[in-house]
Amino acid sequence: MKKLFETVDVVIIANTTVRDENFFYVTRLPGMWEYSFAVVFPDRVEIIAPPLEEGTAHTYTNRREMEKLLKRMVDAERIGFNGERLPYNHFRYLKKLLGGKWIDVSRILSEQRAVKRKDELHLIKKACRISLRIVEQLYQMDERMSERELATEIEHEMRKNNACPSFDTIVAYGIHTASPHHTPTNKRWVLPALIDLGAKYRGYSSDITRSFVERRGKKLHEIVENALHMAVDEMKSGVAARSIYKLVEDYFGRYGYRMRHALGHSIGINVHDGFSITRNADFVLQENMVFAIEPAVYLKRYGIRIEEDVVVGKNTSTIIR
Amino acid sequence: MKKLFETVDVVIIANTTVRDENFFYVTRLPGMWEYSFAVVFPDRVEIIAPPLEEGTAHTYTNRREMEKLLKRMVDAERIGFNGERLPYNHFRYLKKLLGGKWIDVSRILSEQRAVKRKDELHLIKKACRISLRIVEQLYQMDERMSERELATEIEHEMRKNNACPSFDTIVAYGIHTASPHHTPTNKRWVLPALIDLGAKYRGYSSDITRSFVERRGKKLHEIVENALHMAVDEMKSGVAARSIYKLVEDYFGRYGYRMRHALGHSIGINVHDGFSITRNADFVLQENMVFAIEPAVYLKRYGIRIEEDVVVGKNTSTIIR
Repeated sequence: MKKLFETVDVVIIANTTVRDENFFYVTRLPGMWEYSFAVVFPDRVEIIAPPLEEGTAHTYTNRREMEKLLKRMVDAERIGFNGERLPYNHFRYLKKLLGGKWIDVSRILSEQRAVKRKDELHLIKKACRISLRIVEQLYQMDERMSERELATEIEHEMRKNNACPSFDTIVAYGIHTASPHHTPTNKRWVLPALIDLGAKYRGYSSDITRSFVERRGKKLHEIVENALHMAVDEMKSGVAARSIYKLVEDYFGRYGYRMRHALGHSIGINVHDGFSITRNADFVLQENMVFAIEPAVYLKRYGIRIEEDVVVGKNTSTIIR
Repeated sequence: MKKLFETVDVVIIANTTVRDENFFYVTRLPGMWEYSFAVVFPDRVEIIAPPLEEGTAHTYTNRREMEKLLKRMVDAERIGFNGERLPYNHFRYLKKLLGGKWIDVSRILSEQRAVKRKDELHLIKKACRISLRIVEQLYQMDERMSERELATEIEHEMRKNNACPSFDTIVAYGIHTASPHHTPTNKRWVLPALIDLGAKYRGYSSDITRSFVERRGKKLHEIVENALHMAVDEMKSGVAARSIYKLVEDYFGRYGYRMRHALGHSIGINVHDGFSITRNADFVLQENMVFAIEPAVYLKRYGIRIEEDVVVGKNTSTIIR
């Protein structure tokens, strides 16, 4: 938080008509927290919320009380806010109510969130392991379920592990694998198949993809797998994200394949948590950043994507197992 | 849409770092549509999107192309936007890029969305019926599941019906029913019990609550049920929402109970779709508005809430069955 308070005296994180996941980040409190505010000071966080959330918060029962609480709490000149979440109308309303100089701190917030604390790493690993266990069950599956049935089974399995899906599970069979973002249908099981799933555990996400191919897909599967390991082997603190992208792009280029989407994205509270590894990425990897790395090749009749979650280390990186 | 274009020439609905559910409302297209724009004219809607969404959209592969498309498409003086969703940073960016006069149309949009079209009513009813069928199964349930297990089962059942939860299912046993927004735990089945669930079907939500009580709760259950029917019987086109609230508030008051939350809320694409029936509600019911009506009494040791979804008619209202 230190860097944050070099430019502002206080930060307001607002859950209004739009939820800001930073509310959870700064308070560590689960729950909806509708129409609630986290007022972040260098040494503490105060919460203003409706009476549904009694106990940990200063509660209000009407707008006048809410305004009084906000004014009493936020007695500062330089007020930080998240310009990537706070809707325009609510920005205007709060600025008029509280006065002061309003400074967008979205970039600092997302940079800070990209480097995970120990407890966050722990939860992400746990989320990954739930996903990986489900992935292993896929290999033993003998029932021939439709795309939709399998997606339902996968999400049910997550819930049995006290997790929930961090995004809508993708199950694609046959030609459906050629589309990166397929929505499951009633299509019956056939190879190739692509399954992209992610359990969310106590607020933290994972994101894993497996592709299953017939014999003639094996070669391409190997190329995509090589790309994955090539990327992971280069990832470490200090490396420019775009150089990792370039490496895979060049490798695929040698076979005449092109990249159709980012090579990877940071994961955390959100499954897309702020930073993407693309051709123009302008950031450098740091220790304890966590990325989903997902090289993929989409041909006309089918596609192959393999995705693992990777913790960046000082001199090396590790695929979460 | 007519009223919308009295004050603006074009409306931009943007899915940026925040999703705007109005993108689905104006395009009728399912899917994520990340970093996409719906440009709404009086007679048509144009879509600008990344190449993942090829087919129905004008696609861009980088920011420069996106800006070119936006500039070419939005050649207007009065530009409408949704100030309740568009984050401050993206408002600033778009306004600078496109110039013109920017007008917040959030209120008109939500008023319009409150009155459902025929196809929307059809989908909401279908969503309700999926929820109601699950509710019926609850009455026949003999297995004694924990709160968490039952919530998982309920959501699994939704998925088997090609639906998904429109919010996190609430299952509360015993003293947990005293809290309006309980998160399911491993607590084993005991009466009283409160179950609040809602299936979402093809983009449209439902929201149903049932309370199960022992003999000594029967009287209170009847009072809450009376409140529900009292409210529904008064709902029709032209009636002020706050008068419905007042009716129930007064009725509960006669028994010494007070209202702890809104009597109801509009449902639609969102399960809380914009309008709440509260003491200070400033709107009038109109034909084809749809509300979840949820009178509730929370005592120290338990609570009772009963919730049904109601379509407002010209001279009467109907609980969806």
